[in-house]
Amino acid sequence: MKKKNKKVNAAILIIGNEILSGRTQDKNINFICNWLNSKCGIAVDEVRIIPDVEKVIIKNIQKLSKEFNYVFTTGGIGPTHDDITAISISKAFKLKYEYNEEAYKILENYYGKKKFNDGRKKMAKMPKGSKLIHNPSSAAPGFIIRNVLSLPGVPSILNSMIENCKKYLIKGSKVHSKTLNLFTVESNISQKLESIQNDYKKNVEIGSYPFFRLGKIGVSLVSRSTSKIKLKQVFSELKSMAKSKKIKILNI
Amino acid sequence: MKKKNKKVNAAILIIGNEILSGRTQDKNINFICNWLNSKCGIAVDEVRIIPDVEKVIIKNIQKLSKEFNYVFTTGGIGPTHDDITAISISKAFKLKYEYNEEAYKILENYYGKKKFNDGRKKMAKMPKGSKLIHNPSSAAPGFIIRNVLSLPGVPSILNSMIENCKKYLIKGSKVHSKTLNLFTVESNISQKLESIQNDYKKNVEIGSYPFFRLGKIGVSLVSRSTSKIKLKQVFSELKSMAKSKKIKILNI
Repeated sequence: MKKKNKKVNAAILIIGNEILSGRTQDKNINFICNWLNSKCGIAVDEVRIIPDVEKVIIKNIQKLSKEFNYVFTTGGIGPTHDDITAISISKAFKLKYEYNEEAYKILENYYGKKKFNDGRKKMAKMPKGSKLIHNPSSAAPGFIIRNVLSLPGVPSILNSMIENCKKYLIKGSKVHSKTLNLFTVESNISQKLESIQNDYKKNVEIGSYPFFRLGKIGVSLVSRSTSKIKLKQVFSELKSMAKSKKIKILNI
Repeated sequence: MKKKNKKVNAAILIIGNEILSGRTQDKNINFICNWLNSKCGIAVDEVRIIPDVEKVIIKNIQKLSKEFNYVFTTGGIGPTHDDITAISISKAFKLKYEYNEEAYKILENYYGKKKFNDGRKKMAKMPKGSKLIHNPSSAAPGFIIRNVLSLPGVPSILNSMIENCKKYLIKGSKVHSKTLNLFTVESNISQKLESIQNDYKKNVEIGSYPFFRLGKIGVSLVSRSTSKIKLKQVFSELKSMAKSKKIKILNI
């Protein structure tokens, strides 16, 4: 029996005024996109960056959790007043916002009873019924409720936790990719490229990206597909196109 | 007469499969956010990253252009088959997608009549009534139609064009910011911080961001406001908080 292609998708919701103000360059989007694509066969189909405003978070959680298989949030799960992700998700799903027993124990154990103050306790509060995403680097866990996974905003901590999301995710078909780098300009190949793309529109997606390298202008042609065979066919057609137009291929 | 605060906001729409696949780390969001904030007093209130899919672009243009004063798009205005931003915006606004005479002349002049092929001509097509955003580095212009400004995806080209957007924008009140870096952890200051934020909730927004520097853990407290006076008051209260808790301030 032929294995059917299973498309599983996700949205990422970055919650953080510091990204929108330009103060901080986001690093989590690229990291999560790469991880989901390469490790889980999950395609990220939309990313949104929104401010730390409760009603905006609620609206986005409700919308994205309906439209995508998974929603990953980053940011807003620390101990300060601007950390409102957990309470907002509770409200979005009309769930109680309460102490998670397991998270409470982890944090109490980590800080010690004496130093476990109200700010720290806040990090154990989450939507009722949440399961934990364990945090090997700074104890405070993320959580999953329904199809929403909440992670912290600090990239090094997020990176250390991401593998712990895996057990909650259904994997999709892996998307393979092949890149051909040509020393040419886009407008020299655009017509032929369009005709190749049309021939394979059901199976392969071809992207065209200009680059500057070694003092020369070039174009990266990135083909992506769940079918290795179709990908190979497209790659060979793109190479023929380069040959017929006497375009130099950059081997990297 | 007291000058009234004028809030002008924008959304950024990043159009590009290469960002969602994780192949490319976006650099345009941070650049545009910083530029709009610091040069134009325009707050970016939402960012979306979406794939090169016509109906998705149309839906997002229609939605965001209604909700925000301005929408900046990046990507998808080159000569290849995956460059569909201009046609999608035309459809979103039910406008004809046609050659812009001025853009046609610029490109014909840049490439020379002989080398001005169909791919290159495509870059002169845009929604009827568009005005140009001139491109000093590679000729192909961006455009503005209604409140939507379309820029290319290649960061170096976008950066060279951004100043040419200014004449189309109404400026808002400049947001000032002050940062206090403390050698402490968030949970040590979260309660006092919340009470300061509550006292100034109408005028000042205080963000709290953990950092790791010089081998130590710290917190950056970033206060933002259109009022320099309120900002100064908050900054002095935050310093008093640090003093009373014997927290060392990091001077940078």
